Amino acid sequence: MPGTSPVARLRARMEGHTLRGLLVTRLADVRYLSGFSGSSAACLILPGRSLIFTDARYRLQSNAEVKGFGVRVAGGREFFPRIADECRRAGIHKLGFEPDVLTWAMHRGLGNALRGIASLIPAPPLVEKLRVVKRPEEIIVLSRLARVTDTVLWRWRGGVKEGVSEAELEGRLLAVAREEGFSEPAFRPIVAAGRHSAMPHHHAGRGKLAEGAPLLLDFGLCGGGYNSDLTRTFCWGKVTKRYRDLYTSVFEAQQAALDIIRAGIPASAVDAAARDALRAHGFERYFSHSLGHGIGLEVHEAPRLNRESGDILEAGMIITVEPGVYLEGWGGVRIEDMVLVEERGCRVLTASPKGLEDNRL
Amino acid sequence: MPGTSPVARLRARMEGHTLRGLLVTRLADVRYLSGFSGSSAACLILPGRSLIFTDARYRLQSNAEVKGFGVRVAGGREFFPRIADECRRAGIHKLGFEPDVLTWAMHRGLGNALRGIASLIPAPPLVEKLRVVKRPEEIIVLSRLARVTDTVLWRWRGGVKEGVSEAELEGRLLAVAREEGFSEPAFRPIVAAGRHSAMPHHHAGRGKLAEGAPLLLDFGLCGGGYNSDLTRTFCWGKVTKRYRDLYTSVFEAQQAALDIIRAGIPASAVDAAARDALRAHGFERYFSHSLGHGIGLEVHEAPRLNRESGDILEAGMIITVEPGVYLEGWGGVRIEDMVLVEERGCRVLTASPKGLEDNRL
Repeated sequence: MPGTSPVARLRARMEGHTLRGLLVTRLADVRYLSGFSGSSAACLILPGRSLIFTDARYRLQSNAEVKGFGVRVAGGREFFPRIADECRRAGIHKLGFEPDVLTWAMHRGLGNALRGIASLIPAPPLVEKLRVVKRPEEIIVLSRLARVTDTVLWRWRGGVKEGVSEAELEGRLLAVAREEGFSEPAFRPIVAAGRHSAMPHHHAGRGKLAEGAPLLLDFGLCGGGYNSDLTRTFCWGKVTKRYRDLYTSVFEAQQAALDIIRAGIPASAVDAAARDALRAHGFERYFSHSLGHGIGLEVHEAPRLNRESGDILEAGMIITVEPGVYLEGWGGVRIEDMVLVEERGCRVLTASPKGLEDNRL
Repeated sequence: MPGTSPVARLRARMEGHTLRGLLVTRLADVRYLSGFSGSSAACLILPGRSLIFTDARYRLQSNAEVKGFGVRVAGGREFFPRIADECRRAGIHKLGFEPDVLTWAMHRGLGNALRGIASLIPAPPLVEKLRVVKRPEEIIVLSRLARVTDTVLWRWRGGVKEGVSEAELEGRLLAVAREEGFSEPAFRPIVAAGRHSAMPHHHAGRGKLAEGAPLLLDFGLCGGGYNSDLTRTFCWGKVTKRYRDLYTSVFEAQQAALDIIRAGIPASAVDAAARDALRAHGFERYFSHSLGHGIGLEVHEAPRLNRESGDILEAGMIITVEPGVYLEGWGGVRIEDMVLVEERGCRVLTASPKGLEDNRL
C-alpha cells in the first residue's frame, strides 16, 4: 500500500485482529510509526487517535520530530496512570502489548494501573510485520547506505598494512566512516586477525596481521535510524590451501543461498541451501550461527534466516546473507552482503568485491 | 567483603531471601558475576554450582573469559529446556528471575518449560544491589577512566573554533578518545550548540558555534566494560547576562548537591538540594530531568538520584551529579561530574575545570 502511512497500515492490521488499542514500546517500532528518534518513548494507538509518550528531556525534540501524534510528556511514575487514563477515556477494554519487549515488571505495573479499565493482551508482532517489507523510500535509504558502506570498506582497505593491530584497524574504519558522514556505527565493528577470526563476535584488540592468516571485518553504518551490515575476509600474503578451501566453501555457500532467494521461498530453505553447500566440503559443522537476518531500523530484525525460522521471504524484504566457517586455533572466514528480495530473485545491495583474489591484501 | 567473589556474595544474599536458584539475564549482571563480555548470555546460580549459558558464536570467547562457571552453549530453542533440565537435576522448586529484565514472552516460555519442575519467582535486585557499591578494584578502574575522560575533554577543547559544526566536534571527540585507547564511547556523545542545547539529549548535527551561545558536551568512555560520564557547557565569545545567570545557578546547584553527599544521605535529599538551589534563582522548573545516577558496568544504574528515589547513599557508590537548566529557543547549561560517595563526604572523580571563566572558548 504505497502512499499509506505506517500508522494507517497498522490500524488496518489491528482491525484484522479486532484490536482497538495497542501499546508500542519497541523503540524501532516507535520510530517507524512516529519518526521520533529519542531513547525513551512509547506509542499508544487508540480508536481515532495516536499518542506518543516520552519524558521531559525529549519535550522539544518530540515536538520537532513527530507528526500526526499527540505528544504526552509523562516519564517515571506518571507513565502507567497516564496510559490508563487515556484507555479509560477511549473506552478501550483490551490493550494489546508487545510480549517480546515489555518486561515482566512493566506488565505487572501497567496491569495494576489498568485494573477495572482494560486487560492486557499479548499482541502479534504487527509493527514488526509492517517493517519487514520495506517501503520504496526505505529501499532507497538502505541501498544508499549499502553503497556508502562499500566506499568505507574500500577506503579503509587502502590503509591496511603488515604489523597494524586490530585496534588500529578499527580506529581507521571509524575515522573513514566519519569522514563519509557517519559518526555512529550500526554496532561495534568486529575486527579479527588470525586465530581471533574463529570467534564470530571478536572485538578489536592487540591481534596483528600475519602472513597467510585471515583478517575478518564485519561492520555497519547507521544513518537516519537505518543500519547497514557488511563482512569481508581478507588474506595477507600467501594463500594457504586451508585458507583457499575455507574461503571457497563459504563463497559457494553464499552463492547457493543467493541463487534461491526470491519471494515465496521459506527463510529456512535459504539457510539450508548454504548449509548443504558447506556440508559438501565437510565444513557444515563449523558454521555455528544463523545464515542471516532482516535489517532496517534495527541491525537484527525479522525475518530470521535459520533452521527454525517460519518466515517466508517477500518482495521488499532486505536481509543479510552471511555464512561463515570457524576453526578453533586457526581462524575463520565469513562473507556477508545485504540483499533485497525481489519477486523473481534478489538484488545484492552491497557491492564490495568478494572473490578470494579480490581480497588478498 | 573484600576478597570475596561476586558469586559468593550473591549466594549469601540469596540465602537471606531463602532463594536456592536464580536466573540472571541482565548482561551487566552476567558480566559482573562471570567476566563474560559478549552480547548473549545468562547465568544460572544453583546450589553448589554456577552455570553460564551462551550461544555457539561465543563458545571460544566464553571459555577464554569465564572462570568458576560451567559453560553451556545453548541458544535459540534449546535455552528454556536446558534451564529446566538443570533446575530439575538440582532439585530446585523455585527459580528467581529479574522482573525488570525478563520480557513477558521469555517469562511465559520459561514458565512453560519449567512446568512440573519449578515455579518462577520475581527476585529482588540482588546483583544490582551488589554492583551498587564498588569494590576497590572497580573504584580504581572508574577513577582512572574518569581521568582519561578529562584528558579527552582537554585535548578535544583545543580543536574547538568558530564555525565548526556539531558533527565535526563529535568526530574530533571520538578521534581523540580513540587516540587515548578508547574506541567505544559509553553512549553517543551529546554535542549541542546554541538553541540545540535546550534539548538535553540532542545529537550532533549542523548546529554551529556562535557568539554568546552555549556549547554543551556530554560524553563518556567505555573500557573493560566500565563507563564514564562527563558534561561541560562552554561559551564562545562574550558572556551575556542570561548565560551568566544560568551558568551560575547550575554551578551552585551542583555544589549544593556535592556539599551534602555522604554515606547515609537519601538520594532524594541530594536531588532536592540541587532543586532548592535552582529554585532560589527561579530556574527550578527548567530542570527537567533527574539529578544523577549510579555508573559502572552500565552508564545508568542504581542508585537513582531523583525526587522519587528510595535509595540511600553508601560509601563506595559512584554516581553522577548533573543539574541542568534548559530554556526553549535559547539553550541550556548542564554540568556533570562522577562522584565517589565516602563515609564523611565525597570525592569528585572527574577533574575538568568547571568555573564559567574556565569554560570560555
